[in-house]
This record gives sequence, structure tokens and C-alpha cells, in this order.
Amino acid sequence: MTPSVGFIGLGLMGRPMAANLLKAGYELTIWNRTASRGDDLVSRGAKRAASPREVAAASEIVITIVSDPAALESVLWGDTGVFAGLRPQGILIDSSTVSPALAQRAGQAAETQGCEFLEAPVTGGTWGAEKGELLFMLGGEAETIKRVEPLLGVLGKRWFHLGPLGCGQTVKLAMNVLLGLEVEAFAEALALVRGAGIPGERLMDVMQSSMGRSGVLDVKAPMMVSGEYKTSFPMRLMHKDFGLAIDLANQLGVPLPAAANTRELFSAVKAGTTQDIDFCAVADFWKRSDAK
Amino acid sequence: MTPSVGFIGLGLMGRPMAANLLKAGYELTIWNRTASRGDDLVSRGAKRAASPREVAAASEIVITIVSDPAALESVLWGDTGVFAGLRPQGILIDSSTVSPALAQRAGQAAETQGCEFLEAPVTGGTWGAEKGELLFMLGGEAETIKRVEPLLGVLGKRWFHLGPLGCGQTVKLAMNVLLGLEVEAFAEALALVRGAGIPGERLMDVMQSSMGRSGVLDVKAPMMVSGEYKTSFPMRLMHKDFGLAIDLANQLGVPLPAAANTRELFSAVKAGTTQDIDFCAVADFWKRSDAK
Amino acid sequence: MTPSVGFIGLGLMGRPMAANLLKAGYELTIWNRTASRGDDLVSRGAKRAASPREVAAASEIVITIVSDPAALESVLWGDTGVFAGLRPQGILIDSSTVSPALAQRAGQAAETQGCEFLEAPVTGGTWGAEKGELLFMLGGEAETIKRVEPLLGVLGKRWFHLGPLGCGQTVKLAMNVLLGLEVEAFAEALALVRGAGIPGERLMDVMQSSMGRSGVLDVKAPMMVSGEYKTSFPMRLMHKDFGLAIDLANQLGVPLPAAANTRELFSAVKAGTTQDIDFCAVADFWKRSDAK
Amino acid sequence: MTPSVGFIGLGLMGRPMAANLLKAGYELTIWNRTASRGDDLVSRGAKRAASPREVAAASEIVITIVSDPAALESVLWGDTGVFAGLRPQGILIDSSTVSPALAQRAGQAAETQGCEFLEAPVTGGTWGAEKGELLFMLGGEAETIKRVEPLLGVLGKRWFHLGPLGCGQTVKLAMNVLLGLEVEAFAEALALVRGAGIPGERLMDVMQSSMGRSGVLDVKAPMMVSGEYKTSFPMRLMHKDFGLAIDLANQLGVPLPAAANTRELFSAVKAGTTQDIDFCAVADFWKRSDAK
Repeated sequence: MTPSVGFIGLGLMGRPMAANLLKAGYELTIWNRTASRGDDLVSRGAKRAASPREVAAASEIVITIVSDPAALESVLWGDTGVFAGLRPQGILIDSSTVSPALAQRAGQAAETQGCEFLEAPVTGGTWGAEKGELLFMLGGEAETIKRVEPLLGVLGKRWFHLGPLGCGQTVKLAMNVLLGLEVEAFAEALALVRGAGIPGERLMDVMQSSMGRSGVLDVKAPMMVSGEYKTSFPMRLMHKDFGLAIDLANQLGVPLPAAANTRELFSAVKAGTTQDIDFCAVADFWKRSDAK
Repeated sequence: MTPSVGFIGLGLMGRPMAANLLKAGYELTIWNRTASRGDDLVSRGAKRAASPREVAAASEIVITIVSDPAALESVLWGDTGVFAGLRPQGILIDSSTVSPALAQRAGQAAETQGCEFLEAPVTGGTWGAEKGELLFMLGGEAETIKRVEPLLGVLGKRWFHLGPLGCGQTVKLAMNVLLGLEVEAFAEALALVRGAGIPGERLMDVMQSSMGRSGVLDVKAPMMVSGEYKTSFPMRLMHKDFGLAIDLANQLGVPLPAAANTRELFSAVKAGTTQDIDFCAVADFWKRSDAK
Repeated sequence: MTPSVGFIGLGLMGRPMAANLLKAGYELTIWNRTASRGDDLVSRGAKRAASPREVAAASEIVITIVSDPAALESVLWGDTGVFAGLRPQGILIDSSTVSPALAQRAGQAAETQGCEFLEAPVTGGTWGAEKGELLFMLGGEAETIKRVEPLLGVLGKRWFHLGPLGCGQTVKLAMNVLLGLEVEAFAEALALVRGAGIPGERLMDVMQSSMGRSGVLDVKAPMMVSGEYKTSFPMRLMHKDFGLAIDLANQLGVPLPAAANTRELFSAVKAGTTQDIDFCAVADFWKRSDAK
Repeated sequence: MTPSVGFIGLGLMGRPMAANLLKAGYELTIWNRTASRGDDLVSRGAKRAASPREVAAASEIVITIVSDPAALESVLWGDTGVFAGLRPQGILIDSSTVSPALAQRAGQAAETQGCEFLEAPVTGGTWGAEKGELLFMLGGEAETIKRVEPLLGVLGKRWFHLGPLGCGQTVKLAMNVLLGLEVEAFAEALALVRGAGIPGERLMDVMQSSMGRSGVLDVKAPMMVSGEYKTSFPMRLMHKDFGLAIDLANQLGVPLPAAANTRELFSAVKAGTTQDIDFCAVADFWKRSDAK
């Protein structure tokens, strides 16, 4: 029998994930800060709870996927938080991207209540979320993972058990450093050819036939070249993840020079607009230097 | 009838390229600063000339592929240089990576003598050179390209005509910025996970299943993770190309923050060893911070 | 009549500050995590309290100067913290370097209890602390400042009221960015001349006669050139302050490219030793690139 | 008897230097690419030559101070260049800022002709040039320096013999790295406080009373805070010098991370305007991030 599932956080990633669980026959209780984001799911059979606590009280497994550490703290702790309602032997799975330290703190809180906690940040974007082809970077106990594998199989195609709590978030932050810098790499290459008066399409043609081709650039390069963006991974989140990665690296004594540099560029690009742009819009940074 | 071909520069790339021309039945005259590098080609039928000038005098088409701008200047100009021997209506193809300005200067010199010049830097690495699967980034006249297409088809599978002289080198420099930063991206991601005590293999597993996967990382990541390198693209050349790209960008007023940063890192890593390491050995930079 | 003063945090800065208050006739109650650091002050008349709470209960004015935000949180809040003992109408002055947000939070906590709070980070180093020549960067109410001016005059020669709570810390972080980058500037200039085989003394001679001369380099350049350091401003604190400044800037959308870069260098240098080095030891970073 | 002096390069620095030589009674022959720049000197007694060659033919000592390596090459070499006219036993003093390699090449050319060459780049700005208070960074032979000391004493107050040819330029480039980064340091500190809504004057007040005060900031900070600039050291020249310094450092294997970074920022700021701005206008970079 499928367990009852609670789902907290109905953003770009959370909504399609929750929809896939519904489709797979899971009984779903949902909560989102902006409740209307869940209307469609409710119309398809999900139950709406009044708080994260109520979600937890109604569910054997609770999944959270919110935008940043502060949002996760606010849904987990406090009078109306998940921990106030989590059942004994309940399982909490967090798919947000946060610091390893916060994941460990959540794990300790769960353990204190006799519950289990998995960190399970994802990669694959909105496309992967919709198709059920996400990749999970897991930290926690192997036995807990075993218990939730059927559910992971609904949301994704692959999962990696990377070690105890903290390892999942660390690898996720490293992966976002990789993706962010790959996009920055193409942005700088593009700026160079455009600065020389060569259309960006020329570079893209060469890149796509070369060793420089990558999964993320298959999706992002056409937008960067055309200047017509669709936001699937918002800059505000990539900027946040670079901050988490760099802060972690500085605690560990590992220098990340290109990432630190790129974080400042992301910061400037983000501050330069009021729109919720995709992180690959960093390609437009060089246009700022037009003579005036 | 196949034209007579001169080949100057028998390094990691030049040797397999020249060998493919011999195999395809071209009559080949060769020259290299260190002559012994051509012994094998001579034993297979190539003629050895005493100078770049003699190569040019003996050939309808001359191909040069040397390590840097200074080396190219020394084989093209002067009493024993290519231009001193180049036949009227001869074609000079340079596959070195140099500045667009130097390519344009070579083009003007060729034109003055009634010859044709193509810039034709390549990507694809030693593997592509051996298999005859290089990609050419061409700048120059479309008609000249037409005349040499049979020859290009022996050396590579694809060529892009990117515009007048200078455009080929500009796109080539941009491509190396892309490849260098993609490798730096994985180097930083790797440093972060290792700094946290997680084996690099874990990150590689995730990367290879993710959107972060790229052609260059398919080849380089296993070396970066294992620490066992085979030099196919030497750091000294990637470091030189970053310098050329950044100098060009500074002339154009295009900032390349991550590339500028990474050039300094490449510089430090290169200076830290007497070996001719591959550029992906930048992955070891973080080990320098071990406490003493 | 002089007010009773509590003093929490007896590090490199705190001890000479507390000593000056004793000398000036203030009745002093002290506390430090490592109690023995206060022995000398006790022998000269200070009373030792068992907790920050007891310090607060015994004092009209409480001064805190601890090493980082976490340390400040631990002495201010909780059962044994300052706020648990602070008298109505008491004044709390914090001279630690922390985030503006934490200063504002402390201010709200003080207000809730009917107390006053000033942020009062300092510059001037151990030398300034010993001579009573510190410079205070104040945020808070002008009236509160007026009440504590006699006390500030014992510890320093100048104070600037920079605005409401948060402004003092912001200017302090900006000042440390300035000082850190000035030292990094000389470190890079020094690396360049040494790399060319020119003794560092030559650069120092020129610098001291030039517009590049600065207060911080008057003190630090001789150490950087000789390689014989005395730790007065530890790298671990400068590294922390760069982190606070950059995190603040990223929240504000202000890019700090050189600072972000230098933070990574500080991080690597700090991680490369187990000693509590001065931040100007960043001058030795370039020696890492010696060939091996 | 005072020797006859030739002066080539009448820019912001050259004109006041030449004027001081006239005032001191030297017989002066001048040349400048834009001849009209010398009209005032001619009206005060200088002779105008038709080429650098003629300047050299008319003079016992020739001084050059032009804007960049290309300009120096064009005035020294070729049919109308200095070396075509330089007298046997003549002395050539170059006060331009160029690469050490170019200075060494000029020295060899001079030696071949039985002449002497000094590299003598200066610091002190237009103010120092006008007051005759420049500082010279000399490379070359001690005996040559002895011969020109009376002349140096007219132009400046101090000179340092830093070693053989190349050492003067190396120290000069290092000094400009220092000055450029000191100004960038204040620019970033200023951006941080302004981003937080605090007037820049507050930071300047604190800075001027602190260890962060420096000679260059005494002059530049008021302009950076007010936004009203007077160009005394153009950004185009500081940007060029950063390029020379970083290229030298990369040849030597010395990483200059903050300088490399700042060069890109200078590049973007320079490209963002058609005016000949002072390098301290880098303080306005952060305004580019205003939301649109």
C-alpha cells in the first residue's frame, strides 16, 4: 500500500513533482505559503492543509522543497512547523538546496522525535521535474533510502547515496557551481565574439560540434544567443546557491576563485533588473559596457 | 591531381595531421625546428626541407601549425621564412592559435605576394588529429576555402567559415575560453566536495548523469578525479590562449572576469611544476592549501 | 560620578581597552570565555563575574567585544547572557565586528527591555587600543552617544556617528575591505618585483616616497618584505570580516569583485597554516608557486 | 655647461617636465606627434624639430615620454626615429611606462651605437611634474645615472637606482598595480556603504582619520565621493599599465588575482564611456547595477 505523502513548497519544481505523485496514486496533502499555487493540485485530488504542521500530522512521508534556508527553517520549526506535527517513525525528505549544516540540524531534530530525515536535493530542472526524470543527491541512512525508493522512482530516474547528512547538499552545491560556471564560460566566450562583431550564432554552431558541448548549454546557449529567455532556473536561486557554496568552501578552507568572481557578476546582473530572470541571462552582462 | 603540400610544425597536433595527408596520397615536404620529430614521416615518404622557405618553394599549399605567435612570426618572416619562398598563387593555411591581428598581418603579407591566406585554427585535440576528425574555424575568402576543401576533408570532418581574417582566431580563442572554464568549473566543484571529505568519484558519478556533462569533461574528469594525467592539451598552451583571449577582449572593451581569474590560476599551476602538464591538472590547485 | 562598567571579551583588543578603563578610575566587572585572560585585570582591581548575565547585572554600561557573530549571539542571549541581566536604562555598547542585521537585532532586544544599545566597532589595531587612540564607528541614537562620550574618550580619540543601527557596522566592514585590499595591493606588487628577481626592499623604498604610501602599509610593508610577522590583526578575523562584507554586498546587489577574489586568497592562506598569522602574511601566497 | 636636451612626448606629463628644463636654462629641442602641443614651449625658447631623428641629432641627451609601447617603438626606430639620429656617446632616457623587455631592447640598440640608455619611468602625477617633484625609478648603469643627475634634479626630488635595465619598469608597473588597487579598494568600500544608503562622505571622514589613509586617496577619494572628476591619470593609461604588469607576471609565473580582476573592471569602465576619464572614475562602476 502506498504511504500518505505530505508536500510542502509548490514552486517551479514542487508543483510538477507533486503532480507526478498524484498521478502515481499517492494520497497527497499539500501546503504552500501562497495557497493559490496549489489550486490545480487540489482540483486533481490533493488535500490542502492549513500549515506545515497539519501536513506532517496527516502524512507518513513529508517532502519539502522551498527556495532557501530561511524558508526551510520557517516551515520546519515553530508552532506551525513540520516538526510540531511529524508522526513518530515519520520520514521527512527535504529537496530544497540549503547548507549542509542546516540539513544536519534538521536531521538531529528528526532523530530527537524518533523520525527519519533524508536530504534529497535534486537536479534536472523543471523539465526533469515534469517528466519524472530528476536526479536525487541523497544524504542520510541507507535504510531510510530503501524505504522511500518507490516514491523516488516516481519523481526521478536516478539517485545517488553520497554519504551521511550534509554530503547530499555539498554535492548539490558543487553541481550548481559546475552548472553556473559552465554557463558563465559560454557567456564570456559569447561576449568575446560579439565584441569582435561576430554573430553569436557562429560560436554556437562551432560549440555544438565541439568538445565544449554540454547538457546545460544545449538548453541555455540558444537563449543566450537569441536574447529570448524563459526562466526555468531563476538567477535569484543560482545566486543564493553560489553564496551557500562559497560560504561552505570558506569554512573548509577551499578557495573557489572563479565561482567567487562569478557570484559577484550574478549579483550585479540580478540587481540590474526587477524581473525574475533565468541565471543564463548573465550573458547580457557585457552589454552594460556600451559607450555612452 | 592532388597538389603538393608543405607542412611546418610537427608537434602533438601537426604530426598526426601530416601523417593523414601522406596516407591520403599527398606529396609532402616537411620542416620542424627539432628536425628529428619528422623522422617517422620521412621514413613514410615525406621530403625534408632545410627551412620554411624551402618548404614553401616546393609546395602549392603550405600548412603551418606552431605553438605560439612568436613561433609563427619566426617561420613566416625573415630570410628563411615561408614568405621568402611562397610561390605566386600559392596558398598558406595557418592552423596555429594566434591573435587575430597576427592572422590579418599574415594575410596582408600573402596578398602583397599574390598569394592566398587562410586562418584555420582547429579544435578536437590529438584524438581528432589522429582520426582525421578535426573541426576547422576558418577566416578568409570563401573561394580560397573552396580550393582547399579536399585537403580539409582529409584532416577533419567539419569546417565553419566564420568571416574575414581574424574571425577564425577570435572564435578559436573564445572556444578555448569555454573549454578552459568548463574544466575550471569541474576543478572547483571537485575541490569543494573533496574539502568536505567526499571522494571525487561521487561528484563524477552525479555529473555524468546530469546536465553538467560535457564533451571535454567526459575526457578530463576521470583524470582530474584519479590524479593520473596524460597530457594532450598542455597547460602552457591553454595558458597562452587565455592570455591571447584576454588581451583581445581588453582591446575590445569586453570584460572577461572569470577567464581573467582563471588565467592567474593556470599561471600559478604552470609555474608550480617543471613538467609539461595537461591543463586539466588545474584540479590539483586546491591541494596547495594543505596545512603545514 | 563615573558609571559602573561591565566588559566582556578580553582578546587582543579587549584587554588593553579594559585596562585603560581601570586606569581611568572606572569600576570594572569583567568576563571572558577563557577566564585566565582576565587575571591581570583582576590583579589590578577588576571584579570577575561568572557569566555575561552577572556582568550586566553589576553594571550601568556593558561593553562587548568578541570575535564573531556567533560569539556575540552566545554572550548576549540565553539564560546566562547579557540580556538576561541587563538593568532597565542600562546601556549596551558592542564593539565587535558583526553584520548590520545582528546589530539591529541586538538593538531591538535592548529596546524591548527599556535599555539602550550602541554599535561601536573600532579601528586602530592593538596599538590604538593600548594608547587609547581608537576610532569608533557609531550607529544608534545621538542621545545615547552623548551619555557615553566620557567613556569613549578614555578608549579613543575620535568617534563618528554614522546613522541609525547598522550604519556603524556597514562602515566598519567597508573600512576592513579597504584595509585588506590595500595590503593585498602591496602583496601583489611585491610578488611581481620578487618574481622578477628584485628585492622587495627596493619596492618598499619607492612606495614609502610615493603616493602609494598608506597608514596600514607603514606598519605592514616592513613585515611583508622581511617575512617576519607579528600578529596584530589575525587573518582569521580579516577573513571573517571579508565574508561579512561580501555577504552584505550580495544582499544589497553591490558587486565587490576584488574583495570577493581576495577573500578566496585569504581563505587559502589561512587554510595553509595552523598558526594564527597576521592578515598581511597574505604576502607569502606567491611563494606557493615555486617549482617542484 | 648644461648639455643640449631633446624632449619627445608632450602629453600631460611631458609638457610640464619640458617647461621645467627650459626654466632651468637647458637648451631644448622638442618633438610631439601633434605638433601644436609644443607651441607654448616654442614661444618660451624651445626649438621644434621635424622628427625624433632630428631631435636626437641636435641633442646630447634625449628624453622620451610617450603613452605606450607602440608609441615608443615608433619614435625610437625607423628612418625618422631617435636611433637614426642619436649621436655617438649620446644618452637616451625613456620615462614612458613600457614592458621591461622593450626597455632592454632599447638598451641593446643604444649600446650597438655606442650610446647609453636609461629607463626612467616616473611617479608623482601631473602635480609632481609641474612642481619638479617627480620620483624616478631607474634601471641601467650607475655611471650613466651619475652623468644625468643634474638634469634629474630639475625634474624630480628623488631617484632610485633599482638595478639593470628592466628593473625600473618592473618596479614602475608594480607601483601602478599598487596605486590602481588602492583606488579600487576605496571604490569597493564606497560602493558598499552607498549600497546601504550611507553617504560616501561618511566613509571618507572615517578613512581620512584611519590607517587606511594613503597619498593617492588624499587626492582621489574626494573626487570619487563627489563624482566630480578631473583627469590627471587617464584610465586608458592605467588600464594599459595593468595589462603590461599582468602580462609580465604571467611570463614570470606570478599570479596577480586582484589585479587581473581589476583590469577587467577598468576595461569595462573605459569601454563604457567615450570620455578620457581618470582611473579613479572606476568608483562609478557600481552604479551600473541600478534596476531597470
